[in-house]
Amino acid sequence: MAVTEPKKIIIDTDPGIDDAMAIFVALQSPEVEVIGLTTIYGNVYTTLATRNALHLLEVAGRTDIPVAEGSHVTITKGTKLRIADFVHGADGLGNQNFPPPKGKPIEQSAAAFLVEQANLYPGKITVVALGPLTNIALATQLEPAFAKNIGQIVLLGGAFAVNGNVNPAAEANIFGDPDAADIVFTSGADILGVGINVTHQVVLTDADREKLARSNGKFAQYLCKILDVYFSYHRDAYSTKGVYLHDPTALLAAVNPSLITYTEGVVRVQTNGITRGLTILYNKQKRFGEVTEWSDKPTVKVAVTVDAPAVVNLVMERLMDS
Amino acid sequence: MAVTEPKKIIIDTDPGIDDAMAIFVALQSPEVEVIGLTTIYGNVYTTLATRNALHLLEVAGRTDIPVAEGSHVTITKGTKLRIADFVHGADGLGNQNFPPPKGKPIEQSAAAFLVEQANLYPGKITVVALGPLTNIALATQLEPAFAKNIGQIVLLGGAFAVNGNVNPAAEANIFGDPDAADIVFTSGADILGVGINVTHQVVLTDADREKLARSNGKFAQYLCKILDVYFSYHRDAYSTKGVYLHDPTALLAAVNPSLITYTEGVVRVQTNGITRGLTILYNKQKRFGEVTEWSDKPTVKVAVTVDAPAVVNLVMERLMDS
Repeated sequence: MAVTEPKKIIIDTDPGIDDAMAIFVALQSPEVEVIGLTTIYGNVYTTLATRNALHLLEVAGRTDIPVAEGSHVTITKGTKLRIADFVHGADGLGNQNFPPPKGKPIEQSAAAFLVEQANLYPGKITVVALGPLTNIALATQLEPAFAKNIGQIVLLGGAFAVNGNVNPAAEANIFGDPDAADIVFTSGADILGVGINVTHQVVLTDADREKLARSNGKFAQYLCKILDVYFSYHRDAYSTKGVYLHDPTALLAAVNPSLITYTEGVVRVQTNGITRGLTILYNKQKRFGEVTEWSDKPTVKVAVTVDAPAVVNLVMERLMDS
Repeated sequence: MAVTEPKKIIIDTDPGIDDAMAIFVALQSPEVEVIGLTTIYGNVYTTLATRNALHLLEVAGRTDIPVAEGSHVTITKGTKLRIADFVHGADGLGNQNFPPPKGKPIEQSAAAFLVEQANLYPGKITVVALGPLTNIALATQLEPAFAKNIGQIVLLGGAFAVNGNVNPAAEANIFGDPDAADIVFTSGADILGVGINVTHQVVLTDADREKLARSNGKFAQYLCKILDVYFSYHRDAYSTKGVYLHDPTALLAAVNPSLITYTEGVVRVQTNGITRGLTILYNKQKRFGEVTEWSDKPTVKVAVTVDAPAVVNLVMERLMDS
């Protein structure tokens, strides 16, 4: 029997309740090997993201995995950060007052770590980017060959042909650093964008949460503690009795690409004005006579549909099996 | 039997092949009374739009209808105009070298005429806006009560949740004067926006054109002469053997609202950057905790579906019946 080597992944993350879920699912997935976490602001500030990443690895007993701290600021200096503490709690993990982690991040920056690993295993590494894309953009600036050397970038970001979640135009991760997102989308790397048009189809219900609570899995138990804040937010903002599995969906799209379908085209990001952070995919249905800002740019993949029941089942299974 | 008074309409237009079609359909529709044409740049420069408007009324034998010339420039002065002569021909009417019209526009500007008529028949007039929205925006600036006094504005414009036709972000009429469009959409008037997401469903085929050519209708005969250029453009840009009935669809949405369905929400227009001219409708599915640029703005109606076969049939019938 042929043994398939697990896919090496680096998770770029701003934990974050659904980040915690995605990280745990990744650690429980034999198809992938998590070779590092890199941290970024978004759900929390970067310092806290690093602390939470270390904490989550300690909860999982996986302190062998390095954590590289990422950027504290956007690519365009001087932009005020938007921190989604009202979604994930002031600590990013449901206001549970977890003890500080014992571990420390490595000396390398997130961007330097990404570049080093991509050079070490050219074409073999998948970055699963769950926050604003600053670290990835910095990696492309640090090493012009990064886009070529990295295997794939699966990113949670964008609101394709639907309203955003920061405002009617923009999704939070792209809004967090629109300039970085435009750099990444046009970098020429093999990119799969998973937007909220897709992740809003993947809902963990109250019943699912109760099932997690009844299981003995340590990850399931941990998550049930922190999920309250996330459920409250969704009830207030969307009038739903469930939560969107943004980050786990992006992670599982990297683990098992057959869970989604995608289209291909050029994606550009609006970087200023009232629709700052908006993502526009050019679907090639019209040939424009004039040169546009989408002309002659590399194409990316953008997720269109997801097998939502399969994603929810896989998340549940892997979280309860520990 | 109760006699319903025909709805008074003013067509703001940049003729334009599909403008000509819409104007003829309007003149053939007993449900409406065309009380004036106002002109604007877009498919042609404003001077030529005025000339074409006068010419079309002469072809129809309706020189009783006044033509008021509109703005030659965008609301934001100094913006280069984008003229779609590559869609409609250098003369806007399929390069047919029609003789110059005998008539002249009235002395009033388009904006002044719109304001005057709205004051004269408060709540009774429908403006059918088929070009960039400069004249309408100027009318709201000239008369603060215009938005209240005008009955309805049915406008062809925007690309809601689909790619634009100028570039992947923007539709031509909104791109033509994004600042004017944002003023109009947020003016508080009763507005129905008909975007290319809807009009791209309404296709006049080659077979329809042949049927028009075989009829004795004078409008059908005239249009068959000018349609060649428009068919060529669609073949090149969209690989279709048909043409989109943008303007006639918007016109018929004003004549018979039951031909379309719509949703309601706040529409804002991006006025700069790579997605300049983009329209974003806030669908109210999420309650945003933060104040957004869509907060506390008046809602408008945006067409969602159209009974395309009924629109095509109605256009054909009315053009052949003359």
